[in-house]
Amino acid sequence: MKSLMRHINIIARCAGMYRADRLGDSELGAVHQSYVLAICKNPGISQDELARHICINKSNVTRKITYLEEHGYVTRVQSESDKRITLVYPTQKMQNVLPQVRAVTDECNEYMTRGFTEEELKQFKKLLERVSARAKSYVETRGNDKL
Amino acid sequence: MKSLMRHINIIARCAGMYRADRLGDSELGAVHQSYVLAICKNPGISQDELARHICINKSNVTRKITYLEEHGYVTRVQSESDKRITLVYPTQKMQNVLPQVRAVTDECNEYMTRGFTEEELKQFKKLLERVSARAKSYVETRGNDKL
Repeated sequence: MKSLMRHINIIARCAGMYRADRLGDSELGAVHQSYVLAICKNPGISQDELARHICINKSNVTRKITYLEEHGYVTRVQSESDKRITLVYPTQKMQNVLPQVRAVTDECNEYMTRGFTEEELKQFKKLLERVSARAKSYVETRGNDKL
Repeated sequence: MKSLMRHINIIARCAGMYRADRLGDSELGAVHQSYVLAICKNPGISQDELARHICINKSNVTRKITYLEEHGYVTRVQSESDKRITLVYPTQKMQNVLPQVRAVTDECNEYMTRGFTEEELKQFKKLLERVSARAKSYVETRGNDKL
């Protein structure tokens, strides 16, 4: 299936544009939505766990978290049990944008699959979950240091 | 289906890492593979068509094409029929990397769907094609100027 990843890339890029359009010219571009959703769901997540969770390499995560901290969306705290670990907490400002980010994400999911029957949706989700688990397993076997 | 786009993003990001690992530290990072495949398949494609084809916004495409030109992978030619249009042609250097880029893309597609039956692959492709067409239609209704 030669075109599989081409379709995945196109969907990911168009969904990024969709979300960026809906969020307007806010400080939070479309790329930050994964961060908002993950950090609000897991307050106190370490930067390394966050990188694994959203499958973005550590140096990019560090850069984005620095941006989010500078703009008042997160605070960073050194772990008491291990000083090398940095924990990330959402601020009230991030909590305040969460409903809008969630709404745009839901709207985008709904837009992309409009016309699907319940059965097709279920099937699509099941297949996507398998591929996504396989994709994550690649990143894990690759070693965290490389992430 | 709340998690649809989360799965899509994870697959796209992990596939990017997979391809980057396989291509090594070449001048062509994982992000350029879409360009190599599209330009070699459509020599003389205009920059704007290319942006629509791979669903990346025009300013990013211009930046990447400039990079590819500086590194000897493409040449840019002004269209004779319309001077405002820039056409992009692959050089021999780009043609030379095409087999490797294709092989890595095939390998990545195969890796991500290992364990799928023929029937599941067919189903998955069909559903992905529908979502990808819908995603592209969003970008088209949004207007080319915004792309």
